Amino acid sequence: MTLTQTKQVYEISHTLTYYECTDTGHPSMSMLLSMMTMVSDMHLEFMGLDTATVHKTGGAWVVTGYDGTFSPTQPVYGQQVVLGTKAVAYNRFFALREFWMTDRERKHEYVHLRALFVFMNLKKRRLMSIPPQLIEIFGSPLVKRLPRLHQPAAIEGRALRELPYRVRYFDIDVNHHVNNARYFDWLLDPLGSRFLRTHQFVKMAIKYLHEVRETMTVASSYQVQEKDTEIITRHEIRVEGRVCAQAEIVWNKIK
Amino acid sequence: MTLTQTKQVYEISHTLTYYECTDTGHPSMSMLLSMMTMVSDMHLEFMGLDTATVHKTGGAWVVTGYDGTFSPTQPVYGQQVVLGTKAVAYNRFFALREFWMTDRERKHEYVHLRALFVFMNLKKRRLMSIPPQLIEIFGSPLVKRLPRLHQPAAIEGRALRELPYRVRYFDIDVNHHVNNARYFDWLLDPLGSRFLRTHQFVKMAIKYLHEVRETMTVASSYQVQEKDTEIITRHEIRVEGRVCAQAEIVWNKIK
Repeated sequence: MTLTQTKQVYEISHTLTYYECTDTGHPSMSMLLSMMTMVSDMHLEFMGLDTATVHKTGGAWVVTGYDGTFSPTQPVYGQQVVLGTKAVAYNRFFALREFWMTDRERKHEYVHLRALFVFMNLKKRRLMSIPPQLIEIFGSPLVKRLPRLHQPAAIEGRALRELPYRVRYFDIDVNHHVNNARYFDWLLDPLGSRFLRTHQFVKMAIKYLHEVRETMTVASSYQVQEKDTEIITRHEIRVEGRVCAQAEIVWNKIK
Repeated sequence: MTLTQTKQVYEISHTLTYYECTDTGHPSMSMLLSMMTMVSDMHLEFMGLDTATVHKTGGAWVVTGYDGTFSPTQPVYGQQVVLGTKAVAYNRFFALREFWMTDRERKHEYVHLRALFVFMNLKKRRLMSIPPQLIEIFGSPLVKRLPRLHQPAAIEGRALRELPYRVRYFDIDVNHHVNNARYFDWLLDPLGSRFLRTHQFVKMAIKYLHEVRETMTVASSYQVQEKDTEIITRHEIRVEGRVCAQAEIVWNKIK
């Protein structure tokens, strides 16, 4: 297997563990996003930009959202896959990355995602322009306008169901923040096991609006819309009434 | 790196992901046990005993408990480690396995665990004798008496703190049961982030008494005992008053 590892594209081989997969045998959405975070962290380290180097600038990368598609055929635990990422383009405040998961032979693409990042001043807790030394190194183009991610529609009216989730210590990751991939465990769990066992996500979009912090309890609610053979769910995570994340997912029925 | 892969011992190389680690940078207890389950599943598959073959006997392996020790120095995310397992010995109803995690050079052992398994008739939901074709193949000795695992002491009197945990869809694994490694997320979370950030587990014992199933809500409680420099915590998971799991953990303060 030949992996591309350049300044702009970085790929690794990964064997899916059973604990990255649900009882369908396929990876969960939250684990897929965790894997994507892992490969972009590895790309940064490969380019000499480890966490300490990034933190010296006084800031940190923050993801504002993802969108993307999933093949109806997903890999199973034990399978070897390729995880990849590309630094696509950037401007003063935003950087766009793509992520993919393919089979070993790269004949089948299981996942293709885009993510938009901003750079956050950690002391002032607000946006700062991206330090040039953290972005020019990838050789991706500086552009005026970046493509917008798909914006998930808001829940209208009353949600179908709402459940509370207390943030747990094990939701916190090595950056001392709630792992934002974990939001998907809260977002999808209210759909229930019967739905989750019989449906496969094929499209998704998520927008992160406010950080969820430890000691908080989130309320996760959703609505369902059926459109021909497609099922669309809209999701919201709120903390004390304030929307922290919105997501939209398109599902296929598993035959 | 030379890995041993024989009928009795099976080792793999594994790179620790950030989502297998807590904000201390070290693997969580639940992820360590998940990794051990992974390597024993792989050993079974290596010997031609995949899940389908095991299920044809009408039963499944069930772990009754673990005990073991952890080095005060634990590996960090991104590090390559060796995960290993050995089929140690068995009798008509019980099988003993050992598990370890070491550094690449096998100079430092981070984790050493023992686990005792029984074989459960899935229809009758009760113990059955281990089918010979599932155990003789490993070449481990048939013995009269197996060593007993360390038995965690029960909580006496009132617990210090108790928190409820609703079983979530993503706690269910590919075997359609709650991943028993996940019990440790429920067991340890009530200790709180301040404790968990400043203490490293060095010994543990857990006894699984009754299965926790989906749709259940568990109550997780604990007590603390300080003994010189050692801190011992005792833990219990109950469902509607019935104890489902008991655990005992010895901790070192992180300087």
